[in-house]
Amino acid sequence: MAGNSFGDAFRITTWGESHGPAIGVVIDGCPAGIPLKKEGIQNELNRRSPGQSSITTSRKEPDKVEILAGLFDGITTGQPISLLIKNQDVDSSKYEKIKNLFRPGHADFTYLAKYGIRDYRGGGRSSARETTARVACGAVAKKILQKNKIAITGHTVQIGFIKAEKFSQKEIEKNPVRCADKKAAQKMVNEIRRAKKAGDSLGGIVEVIAKRVPPGLGEPVFDKLDADIAKAMMSLGSVKGIEIGNGFAVSSMKGSEANDELIVKSKRISTKTNHAGGIVGGISNGNDIIVRLAVKPTASIAQEQRTVNRKGRPKKINVEGRHDPCICPRIVPIAESMLALVLADHLLKQKIASIK
Amino acid sequence: MAGNSFGDAFRITTWGESHGPAIGVVIDGCPAGIPLKKEGIQNELNRRSPGQSSITTSRKEPDKVEILAGLFDGITTGQPISLLIKNQDVDSSKYEKIKNLFRPGHADFTYLAKYGIRDYRGGGRSSARETTARVACGAVAKKILQKNKIAITGHTVQIGFIKAEKFSQKEIEKNPVRCADKKAAQKMVNEIRRAKKAGDSLGGIVEVIAKRVPPGLGEPVFDKLDADIAKAMMSLGSVKGIEIGNGFAVSSMKGSEANDELIVKSKRISTKTNHAGGIVGGISNGNDIIVRLAVKPTASIAQEQRTVNRKGRPKKINVEGRHDPCICPRIVPIAESMLALVLADHLLKQKIASIK
Amino acid sequence: MAGNSFGDAFRITTWGESHGPAIGVVIDGCPAGIPLKKEGIQNELNRRSPGQSSITTSRKEPDKVEILAGLFDGITTGQPISLLIKNQDVDSSKYEKIKNLFRPGHADFTYLAKYGIRDYRGGGRSSARETTARVACGAVAKKILQKNKIAITGHTVQIGFIKAEKFSQKEIEKNPVRCADKKAAQKMVNEIRRAKKAGDSLGGIVEVIAKRVPPGLGEPVFDKLDADIAKAMMSLGSVKGIEIGNGFAVSSMKGSEANDELIVKSKRISTKTNHAGGIVGGISNGNDIIVRLAVKPTASIAQEQRTVNRKGRPKKINVEGRHDPCICPRIVPIAESMLALVLADHLLKQKIASIK
Amino acid sequence: MAGNSFGDAFRITTWGESHGPAIGVVIDGCPAGIPLKKEGIQNELNRRSPGQSSITTSRKEPDKVEILAGLFDGITTGQPISLLIKNQDVDSSKYEKIKNLFRPGHADFTYLAKYGIRDYRGGGRSSARETTARVACGAVAKKILQKNKIAITGHTVQIGFIKAEKFSQKEIEKNPVRCADKKAAQKMVNEIRRAKKAGDSLGGIVEVIAKRVPPGLGEPVFDKLDADIAKAMMSLGSVKGIEIGNGFAVSSMKGSEANDELIVKSKRISTKTNHAGGIVGGISNGNDIIVRLAVKPTASIAQEQRTVNRKGRPKKINVEGRHDPCICPRIVPIAESMLALVLADHLLKQKIASIK
Repeated sequence: MAGNSFGDAFRITTWGESHGPAIGVVIDGCPAGIPLKKEGIQNELNRRSPGQSSITTSRKEPDKVEILAGLFDGITTGQPISLLIKNQDVDSSKYEKIKNLFRPGHADFTYLAKYGIRDYRGGGRSSARETTARVACGAVAKKILQKNKIAITGHTVQIGFIKAEKFSQKEIEKNPVRCADKKAAQKMVNEIRRAKKAGDSLGGIVEVIAKRVPPGLGEPVFDKLDADIAKAMMSLGSVKGIEIGNGFAVSSMKGSEANDELIVKSKRISTKTNHAGGIVGGISNGNDIIVRLAVKPTASIAQEQRTVNRKGRPKKINVEGRHDPCICPRIVPIAESMLALVLADHLLKQKIASIK
Repeated sequence: MAGNSFGDAFRITTWGESHGPAIGVVIDGCPAGIPLKKEGIQNELNRRSPGQSSITTSRKEPDKVEILAGLFDGITTGQPISLLIKNQDVDSSKYEKIKNLFRPGHADFTYLAKYGIRDYRGGGRSSARETTARVACGAVAKKILQKNKIAITGHTVQIGFIKAEKFSQKEIEKNPVRCADKKAAQKMVNEIRRAKKAGDSLGGIVEVIAKRVPPGLGEPVFDKLDADIAKAMMSLGSVKGIEIGNGFAVSSMKGSEANDELIVKSKRISTKTNHAGGIVGGISNGNDIIVRLAVKPTASIAQEQRTVNRKGRPKKINVEGRHDPCICPRIVPIAESMLALVLADHLLKQKIASIK
Repeated sequence: MAGNSFGDAFRITTWGESHGPAIGVVIDGCPAGIPLKKEGIQNELNRRSPGQSSITTSRKEPDKVEILAGLFDGITTGQPISLLIKNQDVDSSKYEKIKNLFRPGHADFTYLAKYGIRDYRGGGRSSARETTARVACGAVAKKILQKNKIAITGHTVQIGFIKAEKFSQKEIEKNPVRCADKKAAQKMVNEIRRAKKAGDSLGGIVEVIAKRVPPGLGEPVFDKLDADIAKAMMSLGSVKGIEIGNGFAVSSMKGSEANDELIVKSKRISTKTNHAGGIVGGISNGNDIIVRLAVKPTASIAQEQRTVNRKGRPKKINVEGRHDPCICPRIVPIAESMLALVLADHLLKQKIASIK
Repeated sequence: MAGNSFGDAFRITTWGESHGPAIGVVIDGCPAGIPLKKEGIQNELNRRSPGQSSITTSRKEPDKVEILAGLFDGITTGQPISLLIKNQDVDSSKYEKIKNLFRPGHADFTYLAKYGIRDYRGGGRSSARETTARVACGAVAKKILQKNKIAITGHTVQIGFIKAEKFSQKEIEKNPVRCADKKAAQKMVNEIRRAKKAGDSLGGIVEVIAKRVPPGLGEPVFDKLDADIAKAMMSLGSVKGIEIGNGFAVSSMKGSEANDELIVKSKRISTKTNHAGGIVGGISNGNDIIVRLAVKPTASIAQEQRTVNRKGRPKKINVEGRHDPCICPRIVPIAESMLALVLADHLLKQKIASIK
């Protein structure tokens, strides 16, 4: 009810503040019998962690995961899996100065309005640091998907006005923006450097694709697969829009264009085109699931901004600290994790939808 | 778990198939003490019902609501409210011919893949008729919002390539497309007529706005207000994209442009601009909540289409029946209802977030 | 959250007041592919309905069930099943006189304290009539159990001070108290007649047994099988105690007596004795599940009682109407239904506990 | 769904195995603004911890709690509270010998049957050690109750055949069995010593009372206050029965005896007697809530027992280790915690039941 859990069958609960002693997550509902290694989780955390290149924040978050429960001899037991990541390199002093000011674009005012109290150190619970826990359990969800041959790929398709125009999967992890178009990637990097130099930040669009999802995932009418994906993605603080398949472009298509013709491919029923992005009526149809997210520019910028303080008096604010000029490259593994969490949850639920 | 419920504190469960005897909804969690009349619900149902103009389907759905439980002397008692709407004007015969074919753009194949059985009459549970139940309970949710002075307005902002360019609230209910721009409305109507004549259909974009939402609604980190709105809207079968505030446009803005400056307005803290669409960090900030939906063109078109049958054999299909050439005008009250449901739920939950 | 739903995977939501137009239930999560007939449900309702013998109330509740959704050609489709039972023979006039008085033993005062409003006609939502809906969906749950060869038997083991001393299953439905001991049954009937003549009522103990439950049902640590059974049974207004296996008697046993020795029986691991009542550590062990309920005497009695009115003034009250002098015989099918609901829910959940 | 969470508004999720690195709990839904100190939690843990007297196990569990999230300057922030207790004094070697045997009275067989794998070290997740986490969050729940003037008292009312006959609250924490009757306490201690000497164990009955609970708590019809209490208590591995108020004794009372007359006491409506144990129709009536639990004798005894191994072959087993000969004294703070959790949850939910 209070919002820190996600999923039904594969249910996660995250906890922890940016400048507290640790953050973590409890997974309830991971089936017994799955081999799980710390290294698998750590690899995903490393993909998310900052300080990976000149265009991400230089802030260090080593993010070493500890598995505190739920495994026996390296195998899941069906009991809750508890993952913990200690916070390090935490310097709260610079937040003291602005503790009575509301940073524009941040949740400072809204948390105070809601709770009457807020942990102002690094954004507290509203910090993007919370997503570390999501990536950790996303790595466990990916294990379940792998058992079902489902593969997930995320990549950056736009930064500022620069758009990727090609898709070459092997390029993605080779460039610091995780773009599948080598040339566009270089332009994006330059654009980010320019913004950084200007004390500004950029947004962009991230795409996540799931391949080999079996038909039948999704629970109508409210827990449709795309509805759950939309919620998962929009629960990321920096995401302001989400679309499936052709998404907003479909709104200017005609029915005769948008309908995907059913065909048989490799002996399985599929669709010729994939305008629907792999989901019809809230249930997967076996085609690729394609999701795109609108990512807003990082709210923390190195320019003086106008705001008010707790008493409503106009003030100027300088948000110090080391912040990503563009969060898209790091959103990629996070968005992959969210999609993995949704699919793992629905894979489990599909087991009980029918007696056949 | 099986997906037919929505909301936590204000929780609805819908049921019923397009060609069954009735559809309905149970509301669990409506607070005691709210005056409620059948007429208030009926008015909203009338706004949704087909046959309102020459550009909607001529199919008649009188949609008379019955209140079977939860009221005493016209006041809610805190007990479940049960609403029932009998199905009428149901002709299932034309579905017999296509019972072994999968209609393109419809959930025929995916339901069968999931459940191993499907009610093919009018789409069964996957029919848009299910949204009648949503509008019925949305009318109850609106009652709760009214008590809190929150007002919701929906309107069509785009159909095909025609975009609204003005906003005049009083125009909305005056034209059959529910567009706030009189001139654009006329063009939209013409465009829809053309599509209908061609046996085709159109999509569009619908916007919903909530005014006077108090700051503090939303439950981080997963049940963020925008996350729940995204889920609610994407749970509509014809919606393929959703954005809040500037949405996808924010991805090509700079941080210095996108951040909304905090100011004091009418003695309350607010923001100067509203790029965020009234929600920051998943919690309402007191500014207008602005949501836009990408609506796909109606899947049922009057053209012969290619598909396969249950055995995977290529077939041609003619989807008979009376269908809306563009669903946007009727999505307006449905989308309003979904937003009302989310806000009512979070209004109730906000009561227990803090001891102050 | 508001309490009118039960179960996770097999989830029911009941609605309706005693003197409203109808009561009903929505089942969400019944798997697709199960043949279901109205007659099967009706049979169970008939077992619960009043007016079956001289010792139950003469009030008539024909309780004809209608299936409004969730079936296609007599087979469940995985969609919500909506069951409705119209109320008949409703005479609310006698409640007018006592609308400002609180009936002792009834929920009149507590509902008013909670909601600030109450439907005083026949107890409104707090009426035992609500259990009709439970029995209706219990009949569906029993269908799922039958597919898994699980059988449920309920019987009365004590009324007042009269205890059953034998167990002969075929006797149960032959006598009006549903007692498996023919001689004790006759004594119970006499005892009830005496109480009725005196304008008084009796309580008793009902036992429910589930046979052939496979080992492995139950979700530790909170949703233990016995915990869910306890909740299910205690959610009946007239139940004030519940025990599993030896229950309260186990508290004066020694460990060496109470531990059930593990043995192999018919090639399956089982236990020699069954003090545990078929559940260890919250999970079924394959032995019979044995549950006993303490049922309080019917609160409505034909004697003048002392109470207060809404203003707290001392008053005398005469509760008119036709009431059961002992509810136990009718609790039997209700308690069976509750056990069936819990087992069906856990059967489904067990499918996803492990990848084996 | 997978069972490791409890509560709706005040929701806890426990994790951790007996012989893993730590156990813990996440509380989601604790309102913002409550002062909370580690010491308050530690005190409750100390009451539960073993090694407190000669009649409890000599096993040491220092159980030092760490608060990892959810507080800021000693005040709850409305964010998840994460509590962690490291495991110490863990010796798993003695479990190696019996890893293929099923201990009678323990969940060894049932966990294996359910999950296909089990952590046999100290019972893994099925260990009573899990209740440490419950007591930790119970201490937080008690804080919420204190703000509402509700007080909870637990005590042992029976061990073996020895029953308490007096109630003197100040005696409870003075004797090692937590009995409110000084003389009975001494007899109980002697009885436990005798059992221990014989390598055996004893069960008993524990009572928990909540005073000054306001009328109106409880959510009909399934989440009745007593239903939730029953579930909470029965979710303790050693509890086999639960009763409210007169409980099983009420089944041999007459309606004219069992009905509690409504009166006015201290200007508030209450009842003269309290056979109902403070709950009518699932909602608190303002009178004391009285709950009694049947506790089974400790399953681990120092006698050789018969059992089978994983292959079903008959074997003898000696369960080594230091175990409580009677768990009742330690159940007292655990049962108090469970009642506190239920009441805190319903106090929060009551805030949204009505608009008054």
